[in-house]
Amino acid sequence: MAQTTTISVDAMGGDHGPTVVIAGCELLAIRRPDVRFLLFGDETAVKAVLAAHPRLAGKADVRHCEVTIAMDEKPSQALRSGRGRSSMWRSVEAVKTGEAAVAVSAGNTGALMAMAKFCLRPMAHVQRPAIAAIWPTLRSESIVLDVGATIGADAQQLVDFAVMGGAMARALFHIDRPSVGLLNIGVEEVKGLEEVRKAGAILRDTPLPTISYGGFVEGDDIGQGKVDVVVTEGFAGNIALKTAEGTAKQIGTYLRAAMGRTLMARIGYIFARSAFARLREKMDPRKLNGGVFLGLNGIVIKSHGGTDAEGFASALDLAYEMARFDLIASIEKDLGLHHRGPNGEADAGHERIT
Amino acid sequence: MAQTTTISVDAMGGDHGPTVVIAGCELLAIRRPDVRFLLFGDETAVKAVLAAHPRLAGKADVRHCEVTIAMDEKPSQALRSGRGRSSMWRSVEAVKTGEAAVAVSAGNTGALMAMAKFCLRPMAHVQRPAIAAIWPTLRSESIVLDVGATIGADAQQLVDFAVMGGAMARALFHIDRPSVGLLNIGVEEVKGLEEVRKAGAILRDTPLPTISYGGFVEGDDIGQGKVDVVVTEGFAGNIALKTAEGTAKQIGTYLRAAMGRTLMARIGYIFARSAFARLREKMDPRKLNGGVFLGLNGIVIKSHGGTDAEGFASALDLAYEMARFDLIASIEKDLGLHHRGPNGEADAGHERIT
Repeated sequence: MAQTTTISVDAMGGDHGPTVVIAGCELLAIRRPDVRFLLFGDETAVKAVLAAHPRLAGKADVRHCEVTIAMDEKPSQALRSGRGRSSMWRSVEAVKTGEAAVAVSAGNTGALMAMAKFCLRPMAHVQRPAIAAIWPTLRSESIVLDVGATIGADAQQLVDFAVMGGAMARALFHIDRPSVGLLNIGVEEVKGLEEVRKAGAILRDTPLPTISYGGFVEGDDIGQGKVDVVVTEGFAGNIALKTAEGTAKQIGTYLRAAMGRTLMARIGYIFARSAFARLREKMDPRKLNGGVFLGLNGIVIKSHGGTDAEGFASALDLAYEMARFDLIASIEKDLGLHHRGPNGEADAGHERIT
Repeated sequence: MAQTTTISVDAMGGDHGPTVVIAGCELLAIRRPDVRFLLFGDETAVKAVLAAHPRLAGKADVRHCEVTIAMDEKPSQALRSGRGRSSMWRSVEAVKTGEAAVAVSAGNTGALMAMAKFCLRPMAHVQRPAIAAIWPTLRSESIVLDVGATIGADAQQLVDFAVMGGAMARALFHIDRPSVGLLNIGVEEVKGLEEVRKAGAILRDTPLPTISYGGFVEGDDIGQGKVDVVVTEGFAGNIALKTAEGTAKQIGTYLRAAMGRTLMARIGYIFARSAFARLREKMDPRKLNGGVFLGLNGIVIKSHGGTDAEGFASALDLAYEMARFDLIASIEKDLGLHHRGPNGEADAGHERIT
């Protein structure tokens, strides 16, 4: 019998709780016959929904948890009330104990990151974990990190993001040596943040076998797919991600308005229906749902809180792929390589910039 | 006879030089009969192009300049080689001497900002000037600043940006008390940059008669038009702007590919042609061309370097509107109000945060 992949799931997370989460699990179980779930949450609520999803029978174990973390709870408060007993905490803890290969939650991002850090702890060499997003591009897809776990990052942290993002790109896109760019601004006068320049110098002067440094990229290069991995600190990264989502939504609204405006346009729409379906699929935010927490001793995936079953299934599928590739071991190896330095000395990366 | 508005133009700026610049001037002269131009540049080159645009006859004076600033010249180098004698410098200087109401250049942004700062000098109370962009939204248009003049900004600088952006919104959109939001990220854990929080506290606690403070906004709120003015420091602002432009281009590419893929789609396209024309117009980056330098003792507008005549005419039209409204006096008054504080004490704004 083939090896199964076990995903632990915060069944209470997200705007819609178990209804969407469990429907998403069923969708993945149909697509990936070798997947199993540990569902953490209120037993009565979870079992009631589970009964309506027969294709999960025998593939999901329910673990009762008394506490559900609210979407607007502060991270510190969530840790106090939910540590050890909330569905969110326990789904993460299952990764620590090895019961599950990866955890997925659609709950409150800040609380999830706080719990993941507290429970799984950052990897050796990693000062701050990051959230990586998958970004659709004209070439295919790229990874952008950090999209909101940290605000500000020094040069060494940016280099660590580059290494971790590179490992994720190898896992997800099956590229041997992914290209990595640093997000910067092109105005001559200012030439970008000091820390971004320093990180660029490190990546240029001490080449790594696992990634290929592609220099600075600007905001409009992300969607063109100029590099496989785009590295930035979390403030600019989050603003870039949300701005792209907002712009896509805005253009979708313009397009719908334009196609409904005249009889001719409506006729044209009917003829071109399949083309529009294709476009909608291309732009479907549900297909690339899932922020990957990188830099911890275990993989945790954050799904959009407001997503539907299809979107939650995408986050689960991403978790599945990350688990199959053994992302953690890969990141540890790459970070070790980098921090040992070319001559095997310990933590050369940190020394180089201090 | 009606009063004319004189615009000084760096005729040599941009990727295409006088050809595009002068064609753009002619387009504006047709739309705005009361406009006049001072064209700075190589006399032979400029007059040759001018001869092919008869509708500019009697409306444009040519001023010979020996030096043209290259698109890739460093600001410091541009200042050394071009101060006093380049077409870029002299077009800005015409605003200082009062010969022109506003200057427009499609040249190198860094050099233009350096020259504008050196020649026109920052206004009282303004520590750092900003570049403001006009952003198309689902409601109409918003102003976003700074989009690249500064990297990082303290709370007081952000508040100054809010006041200046507010004055520009009143000039451009004819709104009495524009709403102003601070760009931030929504992840609970981190709650956004310290300086953004401080700026929010200042705007909330000392309300200004000229703007209405709308709180924090996220990247996806910009395109929805949640506020009239979005304030941020230049690194995140530039990345947001470029990311939105890149996303719009990317979706345009998807759409073209989808509509050309099958015969049915191509037939659909023919029926819906006028709808697509409308959409293209909505998304036309040329229509909103022009970054406004705010915070100097004179208005300078930066056009995209790669734009065509239509795009350059948009930048000129923006310059025209800014000049007609007397933006400088309006900003000075608003900044004075703010920095005097509610009890008339001098520079209360700065004291409040130190």
